[in-house]
Amino acid sequence: MKISVVITLKKDVLDPQGKIIQQTLDGMGFNNLNEIRQGKFFEIDIKESDPKKAKIQVDDMCKKLLANLVIENYKILEL
Amino acid sequence: MKISVVITLKKDVLDPQGKIIQQTLDGMGFNNLNEIRQGKFFEIDIKESDPKKAKIQVDDMCKKLLANLVIENYKILEL
Repeated sequence: MKISVVITLKKDVLDPQGKIIQQTLDGMGFNNLNEIRQGKFFEIDIKESDPKKAKIQVDDMCKKLLANLVIENYKILEL
Repeated sequence: MKISVVITLKKDVLDPQGKIIQQTLDGMGFNNLNEIRQGKFFEIDIKESDPKKAKIQVDDMCKKLLANLVIENYKILEL
């Protein structure tokens, strides 16, 4: 089954890349933006048909490799 | 309101970064992975309270700047 993970920077961590994208969009005429923050996305195709077990494994992957928990949060989705 | 966008590589586009992550996870003991594909994630905070209008604007941003439609797909989410 496929499980998606979204990794975002924590609230208080600066996101210069998102800032630049926001400025660029502003220059293109999108003037009503409050903020843009960039993150990472992973689509994990795992050989496990039980959603609960698959999520536990993906959670483990996030903690061990995918996310840097000092500055990032992660969210596991079923898309 | 906040709108999220997920940008992923199209099916037939190679994703070497995802491949490396998969190999790394495999080496760490996660041996039941079929595939991992990496993508980008944007959280857009827009001064627009009508979800329909906001989505139309975000769709426009994706087409004009955020996604490279030759090799990427985008999906607009409300998270």
